[in-house]
Amino acid sequence: MAGHTRPARGMRDFLPEDTRRREYVARIVEVVYRRYGFEPLETPALENIETLTGKYGEEGNQLIFKVLRRGEHEASGETDLALRYDLTVPLARVVAEYRGTLPRFFKRYQIQPVWRADRPARGRFREFYQCDVDAIGSRSMVVEAEVCSAVTDVLLGLGFAEFDVKINHRRVLSGLLTASGVPESLHATALVALDKLDKIGLEGVERELHDRGVPQGPNGRFLGPWQELLPLWHGTPDRSQANAKSIATLRTILAGDQSALEGVSELESIFKYAAATTAAAHLRFDATLARGLAYYTGAIMEIAVADLAGSLGGGGRYDGLIGMFLGENVPACGFSLGFERILVVMTERKMFPPGLETAAADVMLTLFDDEGIPDTLGLAADLRRAGARVDVYPEPDKLGKQFKYAASRAVRFVTVTGGDERAQGLVTVKDMQSGQQTSVPRPEIARWIAAHIGRGSTPEEAPAPAAGRADV
Amino acid sequence: MAGHTRPARGMRDFLPEDTRRREYVARIVEVVYRRYGFEPLETPALENIETLTGKYGEEGNQLIFKVLRRGEHEASGETDLALRYDLTVPLARVVAEYRGTLPRFFKRYQIQPVWRADRPARGRFREFYQCDVDAIGSRSMVVEAEVCSAVTDVLLGLGFAEFDVKINHRRVLSGLLTASGVPESLHATALVALDKLDKIGLEGVERELHDRGVPQGPNGRFLGPWQELLPLWHGTPDRSQANAKSIATLRTILAGDQSALEGVSELESIFKYAAATTAAAHLRFDATLARGLAYYTGAIMEIAVADLAGSLGGGGRYDGLIGMFLGENVPACGFSLGFERILVVMTERKMFPPGLETAAADVMLTLFDDEGIPDTLGLAADLRRAGARVDVYPEPDKLGKQFKYAASRAVRFVTVTGGDERAQGLVTVKDMQSGQQTSVPRPEIARWIAAHIGRGSTPEEAPAPAAGRADV
Repeated sequence: MAGHTRPARGMRDFLPEDTRRREYVARIVEVVYRRYGFEPLETPALENIETLTGKYGEEGNQLIFKVLRRGEHEASGETDLALRYDLTVPLARVVAEYRGTLPRFFKRYQIQPVWRADRPARGRFREFYQCDVDAIGSRSMVVEAEVCSAVTDVLLGLGFAEFDVKINHRRVLSGLLTASGVPESLHATALVALDKLDKIGLEGVERELHDRGVPQGPNGRFLGPWQELLPLWHGTPDRSQANAKSIATLRTILAGDQSALEGVSELESIFKYAAATTAAAHLRFDATLARGLAYYTGAIMEIAVADLAGSLGGGGRYDGLIGMFLGENVPACGFSLGFERILVVMTERKMFPPGLETAAADVMLTLFDDEGIPDTLGLAADLRRAGARVDVYPEPDKLGKQFKYAASRAVRFVTVTGGDERAQGLVTVKDMQSGQQTSVPRPEIARWIAAHIGRGSTPEEAPAPAAGRADV
Repeated sequence: MAGHTRPARGMRDFLPEDTRRREYVARIVEVVYRRYGFEPLETPALENIETLTGKYGEEGNQLIFKVLRRGEHEASGETDLALRYDLTVPLARVVAEYRGTLPRFFKRYQIQPVWRADRPARGRFREFYQCDVDAIGSRSMVVEAEVCSAVTDVLLGLGFAEFDVKINHRRVLSGLLTASGVPESLHATALVALDKLDKIGLEGVERELHDRGVPQGPNGRFLGPWQELLPLWHGTPDRSQANAKSIATLRTILAGDQSALEGVSELESIFKYAAATTAAAHLRFDATLARGLAYYTGAIMEIAVADLAGSLGGGGRYDGLIGMFLGENVPACGFSLGFERILVVMTERKMFPPGLETAAADVMLTLFDDEGIPDTLGLAADLRRAGARVDVYPEPDKLGKQFKYAASRAVRFVTVTGGDERAQGLVTVKDMQSGQQTSVPRPEIARWIAAHIGRGSTPEEAPAPAAGRADV
């Protein structure tokens, strides 16, 4: 009967240390998003299959996990349900289904797993969490400014210090491509090439554009506008100054292109609105930011962390998607944090609070003999009431073995309450870090432990540092 | 393109007020279980189909959601994956897969959804959460005492005051049935009848036993032992006294039945060990408690709340199940809280903290004009830093409309910072509950708001009351 004990292909078991890390990140995200007035939403893992099919293109369709019909229909091989593939289609469904009861400006966050039958690879799983925040119902750039600020607070709360919230605008990008002579039919192709600028440089992008049949621009170069915009950041220590210079340069380059200029004004509003928020120190106009997804219609954003390839999340305005079930346009702006990526980076960089990953308890109580058990469980009750996480070794055993077990569990304090201690009304506590042993009167032990583990003892319960660290 | 916006049959969307309630309960459960040294575990929603089939009987098998194979195999109608049906089989799989790395005494809690293709009915869903706690690796009754105490603290933390943690023992039950003349082959049948005692009374149970062909007992009655045990509780205000009397009576009735007497000793140990814990005021021996599931091997427990039919959870010792993938017996004792049931009862009884369900924010900032937006978002940043949940009305609009919106969202405080206020360095705050309006100097507003919403403002962030209320 052995075997078959591995998780399914591309899926993961999260043992306690994994789960604690994941919860730590999720809690900080939640606390910050709540401070911005975003509300939690949860939707079912299974959706009617028609809800999902046709929403993710041909390739996406193939990656959807489909559920067999049950009972008499099972043999037919037909499917009627499918596993959630992202959090956006369920949101669109919810917005349509409850439009009568949802607030006019519906702001929700959602942290739930999605499932994709992708070929598993390093860092790519078939079950993974998405962490989305979306504000629905307003075209105001206040929404973009708030989203950028919220995402900034999340990253600061998680302990990231050096990062950019890169920002661009679809209509600005479109205007720049037109200005450089790329016909609209080739904009999508050109964006794909532009997206690689980080990796292959300006010349590489120009070569690729040439290979893809994009005609040369006005001055014999493809990327004239970008060659004007990118140097604005060289040797410009002041971010807001560089952003302002970029806006001015964009206005010159895009003169006469009404749609693109509206995009420039929107970017300018975002910079202006966010000036007194934590986002101001991180926002950075990036003329090369394109974001792959076709559905963005306005501002687009992406997080770039110093010394880290790839992003920790991205988002933007997409006014056409949320209304898919309503048959109308519904303004929306959202951001998706790369939850799994953030976990990998934070683990690699050891950004979790000490003790979070290893210790399941602050104190372990040893058991000396059967007679002592009721007293020891009473002691456990007192310590727990004082806020400590308390493990009780479940059976009387050699003390050495119990201490060894506590050490293997990274528990900081171990108590001994043998017959002698009980007779004298004392509890012996050993600090497993320093090796020091102390005798504490029984009535004082709860206060002693609470003081030594610090208030708000458990890392999981500690108030999320979001607000505090956001000051940094 | 309209239509198809309902959740799938038997599944639920959890809008913000639902989600906040669910999180509130989950957080208290987590905090309490952590104080007992239980660690969080999460397993994938999808399991290899062989992991689940054959584990839940024929009826269970039919209720498993099965996932179609993908790609070239899709047309075959074959399935290779299935959705998690409970949290016990995944736990058994995890214990087998990571036996080399898990601690000797593995104590985990797990709060995750499961899926069953049951016919939906009132209170019965096809996706619902289970909330399990299990301690693996020890046969000591310390484990039972700890589990009972943890469950008690959870209920106290949630705000339940009057409840019993009913307890019985499979080997005691077996001994009582033998003592009343029921042959072992009919024990299972008799337990089913006994389980109905609450509903149909002693006579009803006897009639049912007769109908099922159970022979009459020694004194011409089926339920002699129970008729001795049940009255011990009549007019006995002292719980520990009644439990002690029950133990003594059981010893008399079961004299000579070694296996049953061991069960009695285990119950006695649990009462003794838990005497100084919060469980002592709630533990109650119940000779009629049987619990349906066949896999229990020792103590069994169930929560009964005053004035509430049915239980809020149950559990017990099951030494044969966790080793299913290992091919050996692994001692285990666990408890499953009825997460969905608890939510229903707490909602009906209005046990959630005020404001938890309705308000998405503590403060809403109005927008007067475009010029004021940067200041207002700076104000929002200050208030958030002070711990408040702050919503910003996203676009300048008539003030009346903005106030109406705040009222519809149950937001307590609304600020106005028009041109006059900004010129004078003031913020006008309206308390939507009292109607009172106050002008607060801008540098003092963050402290003012923090003081008026109370520290640890948001119900979701408030420290779980588990430890505190457990004193009640």
